[in-house]
Amino acid sequence: MRNILIIGAGRSASCLIRYLLKKSHEENFFITIGDLSLESAQKFTKDHPNAKGVLLDIFNEEQRNEAIRSSDIVISMLPARFHMEVAKDCLKYGKDLVTASYISDEMQELDAAVKEKGLVFMNEIGVDPGIDHMSAMDVIDRVRERGGKIILFESFTGGLVAPESDDNLWNYKFTWNPRNVVLAGQGGAAEFIQEGKYKYIPYHRLFRRTEIIKVDGFGKFEVYANRNSLKYQSVYGFNNILTLYRGTIRRVGFSKAWNIFVKLGMTDDSYTIPNSEKLTYRQFVNLFLPYSPTDSIELKLRHYMKIDQDDLIWEKLEELDIFNGKKTIGIKKASPAMALQKILMDKWTLNEEDKDMIVMYHKFGYELDGVKKQLDSNMVIIGEDQVHTAMAKTVGLPVAIASLKILNKEITTPGVLRPISKEVYSPILEELKDYGISFNEYPKKYTGYNPDNVGG
Amino acid sequence: MRNILIIGAGRSASCLIRYLLKKSHEENFFITIGDLSLESAQKFTKDHPNAKGVLLDIFNEEQRNEAIRSSDIVISMLPARFHMEVAKDCLKYGKDLVTASYISDEMQELDAAVKEKGLVFMNEIGVDPGIDHMSAMDVIDRVRERGGKIILFESFTGGLVAPESDDNLWNYKFTWNPRNVVLAGQGGAAEFIQEGKYKYIPYHRLFRRTEIIKVDGFGKFEVYANRNSLKYQSVYGFNNILTLYRGTIRRVGFSKAWNIFVKLGMTDDSYTIPNSEKLTYRQFVNLFLPYSPTDSIELKLRHYMKIDQDDLIWEKLEELDIFNGKKTIGIKKASPAMALQKILMDKWTLNEEDKDMIVMYHKFGYELDGVKKQLDSNMVIIGEDQVHTAMAKTVGLPVAIASLKILNKEITTPGVLRPISKEVYSPILEELKDYGISFNEYPKKYTGYNPDNVGG
Repeated sequence: MRNILIIGAGRSASCLIRYLLKKSHEENFFITIGDLSLESAQKFTKDHPNAKGVLLDIFNEEQRNEAIRSSDIVISMLPARFHMEVAKDCLKYGKDLVTASYISDEMQELDAAVKEKGLVFMNEIGVDPGIDHMSAMDVIDRVRERGGKIILFESFTGGLVAPESDDNLWNYKFTWNPRNVVLAGQGGAAEFIQEGKYKYIPYHRLFRRTEIIKVDGFGKFEVYANRNSLKYQSVYGFNNILTLYRGTIRRVGFSKAWNIFVKLGMTDDSYTIPNSEKLTYRQFVNLFLPYSPTDSIELKLRHYMKIDQDDLIWEKLEELDIFNGKKTIGIKKASPAMALQKILMDKWTLNEEDKDMIVMYHKFGYELDGVKKQLDSNMVIIGEDQVHTAMAKTVGLPVAIASLKILNKEITTPGVLRPISKEVYSPILEELKDYGISFNEYPKKYTGYNPDNVGG
Repeated sequence: MRNILIIGAGRSASCLIRYLLKKSHEENFFITIGDLSLESAQKFTKDHPNAKGVLLDIFNEEQRNEAIRSSDIVISMLPARFHMEVAKDCLKYGKDLVTASYISDEMQELDAAVKEKGLVFMNEIGVDPGIDHMSAMDVIDRVRERGGKIILFESFTGGLVAPESDDNLWNYKFTWNPRNVVLAGQGGAAEFIQEGKYKYIPYHRLFRRTEIIKVDGFGKFEVYANRNSLKYQSVYGFNNILTLYRGTIRRVGFSKAWNIFVKLGMTDDSYTIPNSEKLTYRQFVNLFLPYSPTDSIELKLRHYMKIDQDDLIWEKLEELDIFNGKKTIGIKKASPAMALQKILMDKWTLNEEDKDMIVMYHKFGYELDGVKKQLDSNMVIIGEDQVHTAMAKTVGLPVAIASLKILNKEITTPGVLRPISKEVYSPILEELKDYGISFNEYPKKYTGYNPDNVGG
């Protein structure tokens, strides 16, 4: 019997484990789930005969060595910064590895050694990164096989609340790590290419440079730019591409309201607020407003942010109860970002019956036989419940399917990889369809940003 | 004969060296000026019998040891990050040290050892920091001696162009390191206290939260907040101070126009622009604007930044020639900040006959015998020429005077210090008057930000 080791039994592991448990009999393997919490490690396995949950601290070298040595393939669902401990042992003991995280520089450095040992270290095989790579390369390779050349690639993903659970003015709830949502876009300007021209948007303007997209049956969404679209030039092999743009999807109107927090400075995570624990929400807001002995915090904010009396943004702010003078932040040494997160979590935490939703949207512009064409493709996945969320499904299933295919030697090309070769993405995309994860394609008239090649 | 070693013969050393050369006969000392460039080291000494310029590389241990060992006191005019090499040798060989830089954590750590050896390591004794400390503590100590308590302290400094040389719409030229001007305010929110309330301004709002001050004979100036005012609580011993605010002085209207660059993202120093060398000023501007096949860069910028047709800001931008399609940045791997600096240097570099100006303004609010009072004090210094600038004078003279007093054992309290004790600031301020560096004081009605104690 073969052994699969899964390290980390967080929220994203539910669908991964469910898939593998179901296949364990016919495929004849045993699953060991290791986590720092025994309860977490055991919660998905119950009394399944082909699985067990164990206590595993990856910083306990002996424990980690032992667990990895006795497995045939390792799936690391740990936060990205912890993968390297696991990766080094996988290399040492000759085990394949699967992660859903971006390939770090450190991970990339193992490539030659991994190849030499004939191992597969498959990364970036969740949803974003993951399904985005696979679904994009599927179209890109088809265009190339026909002799076409990609001239435009735009790709957007968003983790949102499902329409049936969407009951606030922001049309948003936290379906994933709230901290990442609060800090999104920070750390440098967003860089991309439009019609051959480099474009840069600083963080504090990011949420005012949105674009609108439309998904059949789900209506309109808006998109703000991700930080680094340019690295996809080399990843996808785009030479002289005219437009390259990646972004994050929100419901229309979210970004303009969110920008109020950005402009005030409430998303800053670089310093701590004195006495933050006892600060009321109202006092927190006042930290970012000019002093006045008489004017209300409400009017100061309206004036400072130029919010008209009838602007819906105001209702959005009030809905979050940010002017409450009794509720306190309750976190010691909180940064503004941490305090804001606390306020948002009061209102944006999913209810027990709420479902989440993943939306992905690609635009491909290409030139084929001298004619410019465009193909849009998109995918919408709604979660089953709070355990088998759309996020857990779209992250966990590609990881699970890839892991089994590597175990079964159906994916064999060695190296530190992402799923961009046909050998990898084609069978995985095919199997994902069985789980309702598929893309609708819409041939369009090529628009780009300058279809008539006007001006310069 | 005693020996004074000056390390670093940059622009700020001119008045320092002139002062010491003049005193060298009556005070009986010899000056050695060490610099990486022999030409620089010798340019201020000429054939003076009591001075010589030598080649000195502080990273050459032997050279450095030898130079420090044979001196009686060391003045380091190096950039702040290079002081530690010198400081450690001063400690080793038992030499006093003077710098005009902020005390770094590393420097502070030497305090106990410096005290044990009975040495004086005097830092922060230029203009800002330096004259600001001394002139502020002079008033603060006078208030305290009379039994008063400081409740408000605001302190502003600016390096500007003198009125007689002020001939552009920005009323600004580079009188010091241009790079620092372009990057000013970055690296975290500005923190201060107003009427007992903490206030934070993020970088991208900093230049829109200015205050106006007025200096007799020089008219109005504006002030934007410095990053960290709060550390002055401990430095000046302010307990429960109501208002504590430090800022940078510009001519009125500068900040609102400068904010256009901030909002566009042109002051970002965190990434490099592809092919920056050949980029025209016009193309540089377009990096930060939305793509359009037809609209002009001018109209895109006006619209994006909401600049009215008749707004003077527009004239300021045009004066800088930023829309020029022929001039190129000419710097390889330039960041936006480096490119912007290049554009500004075309227009804001001092002409040969131009003079610079240093403006300093303090506000002291205090409570004495139950009554709230206020005293404003300010200083304006205009440079003599391009060598003996106001900056070189106000940085160099306090350094020079302090150094001689330490050499003469008039300042003896040992430790890693800044000039905030009366023993130090009082004689130095007195002597600075001989060089025209003095403060005018204006008793005022206390205003603060809430004189009537309204609201809460």
